[in-house]
Amino acid sequence: MPILGIDPGMGVTGYAILAEAPAGRLILKRSGEIRTILRHPFPKRLKHLFDGLLQVIQEELPTALAIEDTFLAKNFKSALKLGQARGVALLAAEFHQIPVFEYTPTAVKMAVVGYGGATKDQVQQMISRLLQLPSVLTAEHAADAAAVAICHLHSAQFQAKIEAAKERSGER
Amino acid sequence: MPILGIDPGMGVTGYAILAEAPAGRLILKRSGEIRTILRHPFPKRLKHLFDGLLQVIQEELPTALAIEDTFLAKNFKSALKLGQARGVALLAAEFHQIPVFEYTPTAVKMAVVGYGGATKDQVQQMISRLLQLPSVLTAEHAADAAAVAICHLHSAQFQAKIEAAKERSGER
Repeated sequence: MPILGIDPGMGVTGYAILAEAPAGRLILKRSGEIRTILRHPFPKRLKHLFDGLLQVIQEELPTALAIEDTFLAKNFKSALKLGQARGVALLAAEFHQIPVFEYTPTAVKMAVVGYGGATKDQVQQMISRLLQLPSVLTAEHAADAAAVAICHLHSAQFQAKIEAAKERSGER
Repeated sequence: MPILGIDPGMGVTGYAILAEAPAGRLILKRSGEIRTILRHPFPKRLKHLFDGLLQVIQEELPTALAIEDTFLAKNFKSALKLGQARGVALLAAEFHQIPVFEYTPTAVKMAVVGYGGATKDQVQQMISRLLQLPSVLTAEHAADAAAVAICHLHSAQFQAKIEAAKERSGER
């Protein structure tokens, strides 16, 4: 059950496909960034993002989409632009009936580093350690996409453990 | 050449299809609002908006999309939500290769009422007068969609007059 993590943006949308190895270890199957051309009009750039994400979804068949639930931006204009990219990413997921899970930036940092105030560097280093990568993911938006996917998988593992514990204790 | 005006929103997206009669008079061919269910997740609501707009586009075959270039919102969260709906509307236009034209709220009020600080009531009354409607368009978002479409058609008429004047004066 591969998970698609996305870090949406009008200029660059990062994505990462993570899967769980039998021992519970996480594997980065694929990551990348979809870039749009600044001088192109918004509709054309949004179509490019949409097509790029649809292609990743069709090739990797993720069973869930994890995305940051961001409520901060420099200004209204940047929030609106982020929203446009985000809307198109959510639509791509809905086209394939993939459930979407949202996590706050703090939850993502907590899940990856164990500390909600972690720096970008700390997050990047923990990602490469958790995914046993030969080096850090220097592509910033792909790394952020991997981080939110890790957060989702950790939450899912955590939930599964709670469920298992409940069953053992005969609670259900 | 029908024009599609859109007032995007996650909850309600208004639309209006305007056409120009031979004498230059504007005709409202169709208007409406696409509503989404608040308790549904964003992806489902965005797909509903997208499908609704695609249907209007396929049935009315507009040659241009006019939309407000809004840079104001209550807060970041509402800007992000507006952006999501806007992104999906722009994507629907791009699916049919319809060029998108953006106008500021002030430009829209200027075009409809002749005064950038016009109230909503004044805009609604001028819309029904310009389009010779039996009553005002009470559906607020459909009225806003009609307003931005009027703005586009007035701009286009104005541009055409300038071009014609240039040709007459032998400028080109």
